[in-house]
Amino acid sequence: MSHGWAPPAHTGRAASQQGMRRQNLALVMTTVAAHGPISRAAVADRTGLTRAAVSSLVEELNSAGLLAELAAAPSGRVGRPGRALALSAQGPAGLGLEVGVGHLGACVVDLRGEVRVWRQVAASNRNRPPSEVLAELAEVSQRAVHEAQDMRLRPIAAVLAVPGLVGDVPGTVGRAPNLGWRDVAASELWSQELPLEVENEANLGALAELWQGAAATDFIHVSAAAGIGAALVVGGRLFRGARGFAGELGHMPVRPDGPACACGAHGCLEQYAGEEAVLRQAGLVRTEDAVHRLADRARDGDRRVLAALERAGRALGTTLAGAVNLVDPAAVVLGGAYAELGDWLLPVIRQELTARTLRPWQPEALLVSALGRRGPLLGAGMAAIRRIVEDPAVLRS
Amino acid sequence: MSHGWAPPAHTGRAASQQGMRRQNLALVMTTVAAHGPISRAAVADRTGLTRAAVSSLVEELNSAGLLAELAAAPSGRVGRPGRALALSAQGPAGLGLEVGVGHLGACVVDLRGEVRVWRQVAASNRNRPPSEVLAELAEVSQRAVHEAQDMRLRPIAAVLAVPGLVGDVPGTVGRAPNLGWRDVAASELWSQELPLEVENEANLGALAELWQGAAATDFIHVSAAAGIGAALVVGGRLFRGARGFAGELGHMPVRPDGPACACGAHGCLEQYAGEEAVLRQAGLVRTEDAVHRLADRARDGDRRVLAALERAGRALGTTLAGAVNLVDPAAVVLGGAYAELGDWLLPVIRQELTARTLRPWQPEALLVSALGRRGPLLGAGMAAIRRIVEDPAVLRS
Repeated sequence: MSHGWAPPAHTGRAASQQGMRRQNLALVMTTVAAHGPISRAAVADRTGLTRAAVSSLVEELNSAGLLAELAAAPSGRVGRPGRALALSAQGPAGLGLEVGVGHLGACVVDLRGEVRVWRQVAASNRNRPPSEVLAELAEVSQRAVHEAQDMRLRPIAAVLAVPGLVGDVPGTVGRAPNLGWRDVAASELWSQELPLEVENEANLGALAELWQGAAATDFIHVSAAAGIGAALVVGGRLFRGARGFAGELGHMPVRPDGPACACGAHGCLEQYAGEEAVLRQAGLVRTEDAVHRLADRARDGDRRVLAALERAGRALGTTLAGAVNLVDPAAVVLGGAYAELGDWLLPVIRQELTARTLRPWQPEALLVSALGRRGPLLGAGMAAIRRIVEDPAVLRS
Repeated sequence: MSHGWAPPAHTGRAASQQGMRRQNLALVMTTVAAHGPISRAAVADRTGLTRAAVSSLVEELNSAGLLAELAAAPSGRVGRPGRALALSAQGPAGLGLEVGVGHLGACVVDLRGEVRVWRQVAASNRNRPPSEVLAELAEVSQRAVHEAQDMRLRPIAAVLAVPGLVGDVPGTVGRAPNLGWRDVAASELWSQELPLEVENEANLGALAELWQGAAATDFIHVSAAAGIGAALVVGGRLFRGARGFAGELGHMPVRPDGPACACGAHGCLEQYAGEEAVLRQAGLVRTEDAVHRLADRARDGDRRVLAALERAGRALGTTLAGAVNLVDPAAVVLGGAYAELGDWLLPVIRQELTARTLRPWQPEALLVSALGRRGPLLGAGMAAIRRIVEDPAVLRS
């Protein structure tokens, strides 16, 4: 009977005064983030904290440079209006970085989640030495940071988006086949001062969608870059699975005896809806602008291209219907290259979802991301700043 | 930018003194559940609470009849050993109830999670009026409750396992096709005093496995009764999905153009591994003991039966591989009738999992449940008592 006792849902430790203050700092910060500009009195109303407690918490957040006080805000109460609180547009900021197969990127996001600096440069990173890639990325990053400093922004954490698997050791890339990377200690090769965290680009694309997109807090995000990247967002958080491998939609079987896949299995989704498979079916060769050419030809009515997209859409629809039956998300979002091919994919995927989901599925619950290929870099910048907002006490250490 | 702000992970409300006490009551209770018999000093060590706080919390739990004090326990400390704490074997208990297609069941589980009363009776419930079914269940239940009272156990909550979907309104069954039930207000038809909660049998089978079985806190549980029931357990909790429909493994597509399914789609897993499909392939008719006959004939080497089980195993393996790629559980558990057919299903499913999962998958991570068909009723009884252990403050109201 000692088996399976979970700690109480809210915490694994004893509640303490210190823990309470940390929790309440976060509560005030997220309340201002969600509802600001907002008066101290309204923060107290929304949180159930006393006004004295709110004042003390706000003072600490102010002195860490996290809040800004705006001009008088209407409080809806009798008496002198208080100054309204908002997240600061200066000070602590997040640095997003991206290594793509064909480009490098850096962005700076302020506490409010607004992108203040955005830089992307073309680069041929396939099979290029990681140290060289990261050295060039450092240059792009430094220019972005200088530009941010001119706006009185101070990046305090960096997140790097990579088209591959994060390694077991923090700050490392385990495998990124399209870059030719294997066990690369990115954070060690990173010459800059900021702590660097590495994250999979599909996960960051999904987070960007969560934070800035139209989808709710529970959805499957599926995007195509060199491979098929998917991520599950559950209750407003990334769902990583027991070992951190969740979201391998690209290797769900479409037909048990379908074409052989590079992974060793047969009939995986990637063999129907992966970039390479679609281009092969469409009779096109792989180039950096292949997706644009696919869209152009589909628009021109090229039958072979249309047939390749229909085949991809059917396979995506079948697989997504299985995924919907299994995890019951509120929405499915097509991102990355799929977003650019939505005109042709969407109707076919919707047909399959309608036919194959056991529970009623509204066609509108399949969305095309408005972020397109900006998702991963945007997600990286936002992830870097977001944890400060959700737990401001981390700045103390 | 007001979009997507999640409350801090640990709470949605301001931390309060009252909330802290509730949290700490739960912490002491779950610590005793996991590690008892245990001294007050050891509870203080494990939880980080002061000994004075532990004493006060223990006093409240004691007076609610939730803890028992045993004889002196070795504390590993110098001085007089304190009396050890354990969950009480008397007093508050949980009542589990089950309506199956061919049986009714009631059980009483004490706070320690031990089954003290277990009653199952055969009954032909297919297309029988719900009021009649529940009236007979009430008789079975009353006998079980009386038996429990003789052991000084007092059931304080009841959970009913049904082979169907829980309705939107608490206490109702939405659809249970194998019973012929549709929108049945079970808790209204329930004449007994105890509050009745309704839950899907597959969910309860998975919870029983979590609480008493060999699997860890993250697994997929798949069982066969009249249909295919599956449930996801994530982080020690049922994963219900955004709308409460998660776990429909039986309608994940195996072959997009496979046999027509009752759900309207084609090639669903149920058409390969559902009871009806397996019996049809095996050339057997459906009876209550069909699974035993399948096993007997397989043991005798009946080729048609062996082929039917192989076909079912391949389909289960393909589907489970897709599910593993998507949600990355630590284990997959076969329960219900599948557990009894494990000898023939297990090797084939393991082959498919090994061939089709992208990340290394250990054969031992596919388990056969030791609970067999006892799972749902056991899970119902444990669910009824478990929430008291995890949040003892609910007894106050």
